[in-house]
Amino acid sequence: MELKTKILNWDAGFPVAMLNKKTASSIGVNTGDRITLKTYSSHPHEVSTITNTTTKLVRTGEVAVSSELREQLGLKRGQKVEIKLSPIPKSLNLIKKKLNKNRLSQKEIDEIISDVVNNSLYESEIALFISAMYKQGMTMKETIYLIKSILKYGNKLDLKDKSMRSKLIVDKHGIGGIPGNRTTPIIVSICAAAGLIMPKSSSRAITSAAGTADVIETFAHVEFSMQDLKKIIKKTGACMVWGGALEMVPADSKIIRVEKMLKIDPEAQLLASIMSKKLAVGSKYIVIDIPYGKTAKVNKEGALRLKTKFEYLGKYFRRKLKVILTKADGPRGDYVGPALELIDILNILDPNKEGPKDLEEKSLLLAGQLLEMTKKAKKGEGINLAREILESGEAFKKFKQIIETQGGRIIKIKPGKFKKNILAKKSGRIYEIDNKKISLLARIAGCPTDKFAGLHIPFNTKDLVKKGEKILTIYAESKSRLNEAVKFYKKEKPLKIK
Amino acid sequence: MELKTKILNWDAGFPVAMLNKKTASSIGVNTGDRITLKTYSSHPHEVSTITNTTTKLVRTGEVAVSSELREQLGLKRGQKVEIKLSPIPKSLNLIKKKLNKNRLSQKEIDEIISDVVNNSLYESEIALFISAMYKQGMTMKETIYLIKSILKYGNKLDLKDKSMRSKLIVDKHGIGGIPGNRTTPIIVSICAAAGLIMPKSSSRAITSAAGTADVIETFAHVEFSMQDLKKIIKKTGACMVWGGALEMVPADSKIIRVEKMLKIDPEAQLLASIMSKKLAVGSKYIVIDIPYGKTAKVNKEGALRLKTKFEYLGKYFRRKLKVILTKADGPRGDYVGPALELIDILNILDPNKEGPKDLEEKSLLLAGQLLEMTKKAKKGEGINLAREILESGEAFKKFKQIIETQGGRIIKIKPGKFKKNILAKKSGRIYEIDNKKISLLARIAGCPTDKFAGLHIPFNTKDLVKKGEKILTIYAESKSRLNEAVKFYKKEKPLKIK
Repeated sequence: MELKTKILNWDAGFPVAMLNKKTASSIGVNTGDRITLKTYSSHPHEVSTITNTTTKLVRTGEVAVSSELREQLGLKRGQKVEIKLSPIPKSLNLIKKKLNKNRLSQKEIDEIISDVVNNSLYESEIALFISAMYKQGMTMKETIYLIKSILKYGNKLDLKDKSMRSKLIVDKHGIGGIPGNRTTPIIVSICAAAGLIMPKSSSRAITSAAGTADVIETFAHVEFSMQDLKKIIKKTGACMVWGGALEMVPADSKIIRVEKMLKIDPEAQLLASIMSKKLAVGSKYIVIDIPYGKTAKVNKEGALRLKTKFEYLGKYFRRKLKVILTKADGPRGDYVGPALELIDILNILDPNKEGPKDLEEKSLLLAGQLLEMTKKAKKGEGINLAREILESGEAFKKFKQIIETQGGRIIKIKPGKFKKNILAKKSGRIYEIDNKKISLLARIAGCPTDKFAGLHIPFNTKDLVKKGEKILTIYAESKSRLNEAVKFYKKEKPLKIK
Repeated sequence: MELKTKILNWDAGFPVAMLNKKTASSIGVNTGDRITLKTYSSHPHEVSTITNTTTKLVRTGEVAVSSELREQLGLKRGQKVEIKLSPIPKSLNLIKKKLNKNRLSQKEIDEIISDVVNNSLYESEIALFISAMYKQGMTMKETIYLIKSILKYGNKLDLKDKSMRSKLIVDKHGIGGIPGNRTTPIIVSICAAAGLIMPKSSSRAITSAAGTADVIETFAHVEFSMQDLKKIIKKTGACMVWGGALEMVPADSKIIRVEKMLKIDPEAQLLASIMSKKLAVGSKYIVIDIPYGKTAKVNKEGALRLKTKFEYLGKYFRRKLKVILTKADGPRGDYVGPALELIDILNILDPNKEGPKDLEEKSLLLAGQLLEMTKKAKKGEGINLAREILESGEAFKKFKQIIETQGGRIIKIKPGKFKKNILAKKSGRIYEIDNKKISLLARIAGCPTDKFAGLHIPFNTKDLVKKGEKILTIYAESKSRLNEAVKFYKKEKPLKIK
C-alpha cells in the first residue's frame, strides 16, 4: 500500500511509524508489529520499523514517522512510501542457536547483522543476541565473521586520492572504561602534525560518561557525509568524527544502543566493534590501548587475553597492530564529562598551559608508538618526537585546524550551572578511586547527553588530602540530576581516604 | 514537576510518555530515558515509563500519554501528574547476577518483579532476565520465590462469600503448544454444571495461534474488575476470563509480552506463570495438562520432568494437584484460531451436533479427573460422569449462562474473508503434522490478533487422503496476511503425506 509521509516532530529514540487504525487493519498490521517501508527517492531503500496506531493523529492514506525513521530513510513531508507487513525475521532462530551454544557460520552472522541494519529485529531480540554473545562467547572464527559482516553492511572510507595514497594511514583505539582517559584528540593532533594520515572515527559512550565523539561534539561537528569527510582529511590529514553518522558500521551502532541499556559489552562485540571501525577507514598501522586494573573494564589477565586476540586479528587482516597495556588505578586527567574533559585537553595541547601529567604522558606514549611503527621515529625515540611536536605548539595548531575544518571553534568551557563540592571528611591518603562508580556518578549527573555535566577530580590515587579539602565537584545541568548524583555519591563513596 | 495530562489517542504497544523538549530538558530527561509518573486520584500511584520528546505535539506544562500508560494509571484528560527522573533500577544488576549463574534470593527476585510491575525495566532488560532464566535455569527454590513474588505484586481473588466457601474450588491449566487444544471451555462448563467452582483465568497466546482468553474474547468480554468477577462466579459457579485484566499477576503479563517477541518460554517462568495464576484464584484442586510429542512444547522426558516439578509445587503450596500427560502428534480438533476454534467447541457442547472426537475425549478425561479429585465421582467413574453431563446438554446450558453473564452471546462464526484451500498433491497417509509450523502458519495468517484468521485441518495424523482432496484451509482478514501465510505453507510444508 502506498502512503504519504507525515512528519510528526517526534523523537521516540528508535524508528517508529504511526498508522491510522483503519490503514493498519487493511494491511493486517497491529500495534507493535513490524512493517517494511520502501522509498524510491534516488535508489530503492527498504527498512523495517515498529508500528504505533491511532485513530486521530494520522489520517488514512498517511504514515507518520518518528525523527529516527525519517533520518534513516531521508524522508520528506508528503513523500510517497510503499508499506507492507514485514516477514518474521529468520535471524531470531539463529540468535537462539547461539544462545544454545552452537557456533554460527558467516552466512548466519550475515543474516543477523543484515536484520539488525534494516531494523528487522526488535530491541529485545538484539538484547538476546548480546546476551548470547555474552554468555556463550564467540570463537575467533565467529568474531572474524562478525567483523566481516559488520563491514559488509556498511560503507568504507576510500582514500584513493593520489596525494593521500602515498601517506601512512594510522589509527588508535582504546577499549574504554577509564573516566577522563581522553588521549585521542592529543594523539590525532601529534600524528597529523607529524605528517601521518589519521582518519579517527569514534563511538559515543556505552557505559562511560563520555566517548570521544561526545567530547568533540561539544565544540565541533562530528557527523559528516563520506564526501565531506574526505575533504576534511585531505585538508588536515586527520579528523575526529562519530563513526555512526558515516554508516560505516551501522550494525555496530545499533548493537551499541542496546548494550547501553543493558550495560553489557561482550568481548566478541568489543573486538568486532573496534576492528571493524579500523578496517572501514583503511588504517594500516593501529595502536590499541588497553587499561587494566581492579575497577577498569578488565583485570591484567583479561587485558592479556584481549591483547592476544587483537594481535591475532591484526595478523589475520594484515595490519601492523600494537597493543599497549597500562595499569589504571583511577580516572585519568582532572575532569570527567563530554565538555569538561576538553579543559584537560586544551591545557595539555597549549604550550603556555599546564595540563594533567598522567593524561599527557599516556598520550605521548601512544602517539610515540605510531611514530615508531611508521618509521617517523627510530625505535625508542617515538615518545621524544611526540613530546617535541606537542611542546613546539605544532600539535595545538593542527588541533585547531581540524576543529575549524569540522565547523567548530575552541570555546571556553563553562561547567553545568548546578554544582556540589564534596569535601574530605578526614585527612589521609586517597587509596581508591573506583572507575566504574565514577562513570556511573557522572552518568547520573547527566553525562553523556547533558554535555556540560560531569566531575572535577583534582587528585589521583595515592595523593594526600587534608580534612575539609575539596576532593570532588559534581556539575549538572538540572537540579534533579544533581540531587540524584549527590545521593549516589553519599551511598556509593567512589573515592576513599585512609 | 507537576504537569497536565494530555490524552493523545496513541497506541504504542507499551507505556510511553511524550514531553515537550523544553519540559524534558528542565527536569534533565532525554529521549529514551525513564521517568516516574505519580498520581494522587484515589491513593498515590507511581509508575515508570519511557520518554519520547517533541517540540510541537505537546506544550510545556503538559505530558501526553500513550493509551497503555493512560490505562495503567487510569489517567483522565487534564489530570495533574507529578513527574520526575527515575533512578537507575537496581534490579538490572540482579539480572546480570542471574546471567552469571548465581542464585537469587527472595528479596532479589522481589526487587526484579517489583521493577517489572512498575515499568522500571526496559523491554530489553526484561529480555535479559528471560534469557538468564532460559540459559541458567532456576532452582525449585528460585521458582517458588518467583511464584511468591508474582503473587505479592498482584491482586488475589478472595471468594470469602459464605455461599462459595463451602464449595470446591477447582482449576485446570495446560502448558500449551498444541494448536486447537481448546479443552478449557468444555471442562469449565462440565465442572460448573457438576456444582464445582471453577474461576478460570487464562493467558493470551504466547507462541501459539490463540490462548483461551483470545478465543472467549471473540464473543464475550474477558476483562473484568475483581468485584464484577466475583458476581459472575457467584451466579454461574465459574468464569473464563483474561488473567491480565485482573492485575492478579501483572508481572507475569509483562514478562509474557516480551517472551512473545522472543518466542522463548523458560521453564521456571512457565511453572511460575501457571502456579501463580492457580494460587491467585485460590484453587484447591488443580489438573495440569501436559501434551508431549516430537513437535509439542516438550518431549516425553521433558514432560516427566515438568510433572515432577508441578507435583513438588503442588505439595509445597498444599494443593491437590494432578498432572496428566498425553501424547500429541498434531493439532487437536479441526480448527485453529481465536474464533475458529469456537466452531469445534460448540459442536462438542451442543448435544445435537457432532464435534471432533479427539478434542472431546481429551476434555472429558481432564474434567473426569477433577470430578474424581473432588469426590463428585468415584475413582474411575469421573470420565463417565463428565460424559453424562456433556451429553445431557447440562454443560452446554452452563456454557451459555457463563458467556451471557460475561456479556456475550453465541454467534455464528464466519472465518476471515480471505481464504486459500490447500489440496493434497498425491494420495497417501498423513504421516506428520508439525504443531510448531501449524502455530506459526496461523500466526502469519494473523492469529491471535486477527480474531477470524486461522486454519481448518479436517484430518489427523495417520489419516488417509486422496490426491486433490482439501487437506487444509488458510483464513485471513487481509490479503497481505494470506499471501504471507501461503508463501510460508509452500516453503515449510507443515503437513506431510507419504
